[in-house]
Amino acid sequence: MSNYELKVGVIGVGAIGKEHIKRINNRTKGARVVGVYDILEEETKELAAEWGLHFYNSGEELIASDDVNAILITSVDETHAEYVLKAIEHDKYVFCEKPLAIDSDSCYEIIKAEAAKGRKLVQVGFMRRYDKGYMELKNMIDSHSYGDVLMLHCAHRNPESGENYITPMSIIQTAVHEIDVLRWLLQDDYVSVESILPKKQTKMTHKDLHDPQILVLETKSGVIIQLEIFVNCQFGYDIKCEVVCENGEIGLVDPHYTYAKQNLAHQTPISPDWQSRFREAYDTEFQLWVNGVLNGKLEGPSSWDGYVASVITTAGTESTKRGGKIKVSLSEKPSIY
Amino acid sequence: MSNYELKVGVIGVGAIGKEHIKRINNRTKGARVVGVYDILEEETKELAAEWGLHFYNSGEELIASDDVNAILITSVDETHAEYVLKAIEHDKYVFCEKPLAIDSDSCYEIIKAEAAKGRKLVQVGFMRRYDKGYMELKNMIDSHSYGDVLMLHCAHRNPESGENYITPMSIIQTAVHEIDVLRWLLQDDYVSVESILPKKQTKMTHKDLHDPQILVLETKSGVIIQLEIFVNCQFGYDIKCEVVCENGEIGLVDPHYTYAKQNLAHQTPISPDWQSRFREAYDTEFQLWVNGVLNGKLEGPSSWDGYVASVITTAGTESTKRGGKIKVSLSEKPSIY
Amino acid sequence: MSNYELKVGVIGVGAIGKEHIKRINNRTKGARVVGVYDILEEETKELAAEWGLHFYNSGEELIASDDVNAILITSVDETHAEYVLKAIEHDKYVFCEKPLAIDSDSCYEIIKAEAAKGRKLVQVGFMRRYDKGYMELKNMIDSHSYGDVLMLHCAHRNPESGENYITPMSIIQTAVHEIDVLRWLLQDDYVSVESILPKKQTKMTHKDLHDPQILVLETKSGVIIQLEIFVNCQFGYDIKCEVVCENGEIGLVDPHYTYAKQNLAHQTPISPDWQSRFREAYDTEFQLWVNGVLNGKLEGPSSWDGYVASVITTAGTESTKRGGKIKVSLSEKPSIY
Amino acid sequence: MSNYELKVGVIGVGAIGKEHIKRINNRTKGARVVGVYDILEEETKELAAEWGLHFYNSGEELIASDDVNAILITSVDETHAEYVLKAIEHDKYVFCEKPLAIDSDSCYEIIKAEAAKGRKLVQVGFMRRYDKGYMELKNMIDSHSYGDVLMLHCAHRNPESGENYITPMSIIQTAVHEIDVLRWLLQDDYVSVESILPKKQTKMTHKDLHDPQILVLETKSGVIIQLEIFVNCQFGYDIKCEVVCENGEIGLVDPHYTYAKQNLAHQTPISPDWQSRFREAYDTEFQLWVNGVLNGKLEGPSSWDGYVASVITTAGTESTKRGGKIKVSLSEKPSIY
Repeated sequence: MSNYELKVGVIGVGAIGKEHIKRINNRTKGARVVGVYDILEEETKELAAEWGLHFYNSGEELIASDDVNAILITSVDETHAEYVLKAIEHDKYVFCEKPLAIDSDSCYEIIKAEAAKGRKLVQVGFMRRYDKGYMELKNMIDSHSYGDVLMLHCAHRNPESGENYITPMSIIQTAVHEIDVLRWLLQDDYVSVESILPKKQTKMTHKDLHDPQILVLETKSGVIIQLEIFVNCQFGYDIKCEVVCENGEIGLVDPHYTYAKQNLAHQTPISPDWQSRFREAYDTEFQLWVNGVLNGKLEGPSSWDGYVASVITTAGTESTKRGGKIKVSLSEKPSIY
Repeated sequence: MSNYELKVGVIGVGAIGKEHIKRINNRTKGARVVGVYDILEEETKELAAEWGLHFYNSGEELIASDDVNAILITSVDETHAEYVLKAIEHDKYVFCEKPLAIDSDSCYEIIKAEAAKGRKLVQVGFMRRYDKGYMELKNMIDSHSYGDVLMLHCAHRNPESGENYITPMSIIQTAVHEIDVLRWLLQDDYVSVESILPKKQTKMTHKDLHDPQILVLETKSGVIIQLEIFVNCQFGYDIKCEVVCENGEIGLVDPHYTYAKQNLAHQTPISPDWQSRFREAYDTEFQLWVNGVLNGKLEGPSSWDGYVASVITTAGTESTKRGGKIKVSLSEKPSIY
Repeated sequence: MSNYELKVGVIGVGAIGKEHIKRINNRTKGARVVGVYDILEEETKELAAEWGLHFYNSGEELIASDDVNAILITSVDETHAEYVLKAIEHDKYVFCEKPLAIDSDSCYEIIKAEAAKGRKLVQVGFMRRYDKGYMELKNMIDSHSYGDVLMLHCAHRNPESGENYITPMSIIQTAVHEIDVLRWLLQDDYVSVESILPKKQTKMTHKDLHDPQILVLETKSGVIIQLEIFVNCQFGYDIKCEVVCENGEIGLVDPHYTYAKQNLAHQTPISPDWQSRFREAYDTEFQLWVNGVLNGKLEGPSSWDGYVASVITTAGTESTKRGGKIKVSLSEKPSIY
Repeated sequence: MSNYELKVGVIGVGAIGKEHIKRINNRTKGARVVGVYDILEEETKELAAEWGLHFYNSGEELIASDDVNAILITSVDETHAEYVLKAIEHDKYVFCEKPLAIDSDSCYEIIKAEAAKGRKLVQVGFMRRYDKGYMELKNMIDSHSYGDVLMLHCAHRNPESGENYITPMSIIQTAVHEIDVLRWLLQDDYVSVESILPKKQTKMTHKDLHDPQILVLETKSGVIIQLEIFVNCQFGYDIKCEVVCENGEIGLVDPHYTYAKQNLAHQTPISPDWQSRFREAYDTEFQLWVNGVLNGKLEGPSSWDGYVASVITTAGTESTKRGGKIKVSLSEKPSIY
């Protein structure tokens, strides 16, 4: 790795944006955040001063600036597509937190723009692919020591959701992580999705949130995935991925480093939240993105992956509304992906 | 417990019948097998001689005999109903291995006959209810420390099935255990059942066996159960029961007593077959049945439970054939149950 | 097994004696308690009435009675030797809860008396040998799949001890179980024992109890055993046995049948007390003792094992008092053992 | 963190030196290796060319160079002290892989030199203090939720040792990690050490290696540590640290991210070697060292810790030779530590 440092501009500095500035400036080798833009001018200028960053008056200005080599988009979902397209226009690498855009048509706009440039410029923030457990699982599947994958049982559980969290978000914001990582894990595409609503948790939900929810996904090769989403499980941030193969079951373990025996129980800790569960995955994701950008070779989740996720989550929320299995189909995939 | 010993007559002495004779005579306090009948006369006479039992010329003769106080039916499935009805006719307690009968109408015949007697005489061999793990789970659910049950993920895996094992058996012979034990665990009834067929294991199956299979069961109170049946999983006899509640997940652990660290792996044993997995459950089942009979108070799975299991398994196999969710309904439940 | 029932007389009906009466009469096939003696006449007569037993006026009378085929001694430790010798005198099988006698000389008296009869009549209550985990460990060691055993780390932990529990009891009453079961597990004898006193738990102890304590045992073949005794660990009844072999580590797992995820922890239960931890082991111990007596072939822990345990525990308490390693040697072993 | 990068010079580029160059240049934020020296001139010049480093003709030249801000010593053990002293002389920060020096007198020379400078310049490579598990354990101990620590059982196991590995190395090279990390964990000092030799593993050892070995360490506050060292355990790189406290046991878990069920066993992976087990700990160690140097505030293991480790390992090897417990005492501790 050369001494050259990638100069990153960040658009949107809410909680996750701030987290990523810290990550890049303190832990990511070969990159440095140099500029920032957010609609909240005053606060953002303070932040800029604190980290020694340039404050830009707009996302467009930041993207266009010669002082910025690569863009990180952590602004509100509705603005993602516009900024990504602008970055592509300027031939700049851009890392966009999920979702790539708020609907699949907008995602496909990006795909067309990027494909027209003839090379990948966009990476979408599906950090699960960089988690040690999922990477190990992928190696195990690829080794074929357990035979073909036949079915999966997965769970995505949060201790609690905020008040503004409503039913479709269980799929669009939460299940989307599994929807992406399982495609990658299986190297397979979905053909249908169905939402099933079990008995509702009533202690921590409201009239617009039916929680938990189950998605049944079917892939081209016939693999069935049963995915539980439960955003008010109360007991911890708990991610399951159990893969049933022809001659064995393999799966994720919630990583833990200590145990305690106390009060008649042998206890191992469960992560309290996604930040602690996937901190290393985020670190790896950014390090590899920076390495990829510096080498001109992006290998992470692409616009295409962002588009597919959007198609599937849309179908999923449709099934929640009207019930039954929804078949899904994708538009043409350009050759750069 | 008095010194009086229950004198048991056994009809049908295949593998499981022989196992139960051994169990009763060696490990069940308060009971003794005294008589036996099986269609294979010669072999059965040898067995009778070995254990000092009387050989009867027919099931009817055995049931009618004054030397026999209680009947154990372990003959082929098709003969169950007839013998159970005969035992009821003679006012004798009868333990019938599952299924109670080969269809739900026959089960209901038994219910009517038993109800006419005004008391329970029949117990069906659903031994899971006597497994330490399930009993502990039931206590945990009943304690309500985890809140309401919302959904379950269960698996019933056998290392391999015989050549005559065909698709409907996955439900009728295998899933039937979960179908019964989960009703008991949840104290709830099923309203629908759907079969989903994932990618087929091709190494150990044949054209008439689609393995694995998934059943999705819904209960009256809205609990959703996802039940995987996989009878050629190769790696062991593996039973899962994971119960997601409002503020916690609880579940079965495959009991094991030792571990080994060897070859870069920390290993705990998985049961090789149902006999080793549920040996204690069978012992407890028979001891409590004998105790119940001696006290005139049967508390185990009843004819009604046998009937319900039949209704649900029938609906399940129908769903496998024609696809989609099948609603189920039950006939009237007599007051003795 | 014939229909003949072993008629057992019980001497001493404190907590454990009552437990064994229940065990034999409710769960042990082929045996029945018929008579009882205890120094507390009134209470014992009530108990006798409750279970339909004959009350004897003395242990001697009970032992001598023709109505009693086998003796179970659960009286206070000081009386064990006398009753065991009396039973031997009457050529009756006798099961004696540990210790066989209160010192090794008295144990050796029993050995001489029994050896003079030319056959084993005595079994000592070391129930650990009948625990599933230890039995499985023994098979694993005997298989030699892990190579020679080199060293062990064991722990014997109780949640709390009574007020009368004093330092030497940690060895005489508590560690004695490991001292016996490890000899059996390794088929090896001890050559030395040393007691080490770590930092004292001060919350639940008193001036005459130094708790925890560590015993370092060395065997003839050079195996080193580090045994922790901690009778006020508070968190549960926790038994460890980790066996380091030439190419693997094997060990006991505290058996559990369920798990729970709650409050940011994955939890599995720890036994609250020895009764729940070793209930099955006691059941198996008595069933096999009865089977052995009925077949005239005792295979459980013998007087010799009781004697050896006494020699080692004596040396252990000596080391606690004066510090340092104590070499141990045994008297001659008669050929019947 | 400023944009300023610490310029590191590395002395000694064997396996671990190369590993650290990679680590610093690819993963450590705020530092860059700029120069290198090793006795193997040709190979080292190639390495220097590959990474764009300056090759120095001697360790002294490298240390003296104005282009080098901080020194990393990964040369052979015998040369450590000399280079560390030279770095102190030049008022430069120096990171020295363990051991600080080959005997405690030499360690104390360093302490005197460093103390004379009035501030800490030296950090010793005890990376265990940066392992997630140990850090979590320390927090648990410090929380005092489990009461005082009473005793520990630890194991340090390697799958196999090289041919040149001889008995004292089990303490000097292997146990030294526990000797340091446990002092830190307990914030306590050792008063005695004793070596016990269990049955020898004969399959992979030779006449000059008695493996395994047990160290019994006692601390000032009375805590007893039983530490097993087994460098040919064959089954994996397996680190145990079980801490028995007044009302609970806490301990390390070998971190793993996946499981597999196959061949009648539930399996979780064991690390194959220390590199994979402690990779993150090394990364954290270097990142925090660099942060500390840039902030002028070293908080890692100091010369004093290196000296104490040397005193204890020396006493340990003495006990292996002549048997029995060796009391240890330390020279005066300068105020900078």
